[in-house]
Amino acid sequence: MAKRIYFIDGAFREKPISSVEDRGMFFADSIYEVVRAKNGEPLFLKEHLKRLEQGLREIRITPPLHPEELEKIIRKSLKKLNSQEASIYIQITRGKEPRSHLPQKKTKPSVIIITSEFKPLPRKLFSKGVSLMMHPDIRWGRCDIKTTMLLPNVLGKIEAHEAGYFDTLFYKNGVVTESTSSSFFGIIEGALYTHPEDNNILPSITREKVIEITRSLHIEVIEQAINVEAIEKLEGAFLAGTTYDILPVNKIENVSVPISETVKMVQTEYQKLLDRLSKRSQNAHLKN
Amino acid sequence: MAKRIYFIDGAFREKPISSVEDRGMFFADSIYEVVRAKNGEPLFLKEHLKRLEQGLREIRITPPLHPEELEKIIRKSLKKLNSQEASIYIQITRGKEPRSHLPQKKTKPSVIIITSEFKPLPRKLFSKGVSLMMHPDIRWGRCDIKTTMLLPNVLGKIEAHEAGYFDTLFYKNGVVTESTSSSFFGIIEGALYTHPEDNNILPSITREKVIEITRSLHIEVIEQAINVEAIEKLEGAFLAGTTYDILPVNKIENVSVPISETVKMVQTEYQKLLDRLSKRSQNAHLKN
Repeated sequence: MAKRIYFIDGAFREKPISSVEDRGMFFADSIYEVVRAKNGEPLFLKEHLKRLEQGLREIRITPPLHPEELEKIIRKSLKKLNSQEASIYIQITRGKEPRSHLPQKKTKPSVIIITSEFKPLPRKLFSKGVSLMMHPDIRWGRCDIKTTMLLPNVLGKIEAHEAGYFDTLFYKNGVVTESTSSSFFGIIEGALYTHPEDNNILPSITREKVIEITRSLHIEVIEQAINVEAIEKLEGAFLAGTTYDILPVNKIENVSVPISETVKMVQTEYQKLLDRLSKRSQNAHLKN
Repeated sequence: MAKRIYFIDGAFREKPISSVEDRGMFFADSIYEVVRAKNGEPLFLKEHLKRLEQGLREIRITPPLHPEELEKIIRKSLKKLNSQEASIYIQITRGKEPRSHLPQKKTKPSVIIITSEFKPLPRKLFSKGVSLMMHPDIRWGRCDIKTTMLLPNVLGKIEAHEAGYFDTLFYKNGVVTESTSSSFFGIIEGALYTHPEDNNILPSITREKVIEITRSLHIEVIEQAINVEAIEKLEGAFLAGTTYDILPVNKIENVSVPISETVKMVQTEYQKLLDRLSKRSQNAHLKN
């Protein structure tokens, strides 16, 4: 089993100790983030920590740690892990107390940081692409907040695998929203379409970077949701997210989707961006 | 702090030990029940355990314990607690494993049973009633499954309290669904209305008993959702649930609601039913 570094409630721990009486366990009363690190450098860390703080405020949890304190813990965790590729999972819950919907005011939030070796998906998936099944998006009305209310996402993943697909693509009111743990992008008539930022999708950090990269390639990006009927017209499509990077889609239900040149270009440019970021910081560290 | 008896993963424990790597914590990947007990007798236990098992199957968790085994543990817990009024919280998660949306097949579900003294709400609330604020029902599409995806319920409770109300009443597509932890009933033109059983509400056990009781009083029960506009016409209303019993509503937003005779009758009959059940079983125990 992969080595994992646990920082829980103020200290590094040998074991992932917790209480069943944590509001994260009772009520999904918590916010999380997943950060990737390359060569010991956490990528887009400021963006992740900003979104974490915004999410906490949205659900009325006072952030227990300043982003700078979190960054220190994350960098210490990465040193302890000492792995080229790492993922950092951060979860902050409203804290531990006897179960009652209405929280006590004095309860201190729980802070959980799990740092582990990151194993990317098999290489061939990045060239050959993955298949998606479709499912109505029955998630709650605030998918823009990164909460641990993830059961429909888990069920989407289980059902896709049981049916022989890689993942599930959600749709709502006739349009595609996103996948169980990534954003969805599709190419139609040469332009790249993706769902606009609203309460139906996560304001994904990778999504932002993809939009910047694509525009820098002089390809039009249209933040408009794709109709379910338009899936047959897709000239290319991909999932984008912290753990998937840019993952081409080759099939949605029974519709084949080509692996387009645009997808490959975005994939290459995104990889270059990650490499630049991890190298730049390595150089910065060497200079210090 | 009230005494609590913890049964966790196969044994009674001194402390509420858990792991941060429980899928209940990571993904709200779990089902729960709350059972009341009077004089050591768990009420409507068969119904609760049946719903628990159905919920587990809905989210594709194989029930780790037979209802009879759960009943034995619950009765043992009640003996250990030795309290006249008790509540039993049961939570079953998909188990503990490193975080990944797609679960491992071999992982064993976590079983958590917390038995504690039950403190009913202040008596005067049962005669004077409680106030409700309204909020759009933004919960997920399967509220008929009793999962721990409860953050919108928690937020509903917090926001109601901050605004000076007792609780929040959810509405969706122009009709009232239910409250954050109870069913809603309203009287219009002498008949008792409540939302029909579908994916928008929990198939509440108390709701079933209320319908039976009301019909036995020769009052018409109509399982049809109440339009938000009809709130002004309410001749009486109440919340019903395992921890609230029958709790009259005296105000919804700025609309006063009378405490009707029907509400008092249902309240009295429901209380008699609970007393009968707890005494009958006491007698049964004495005979054994």
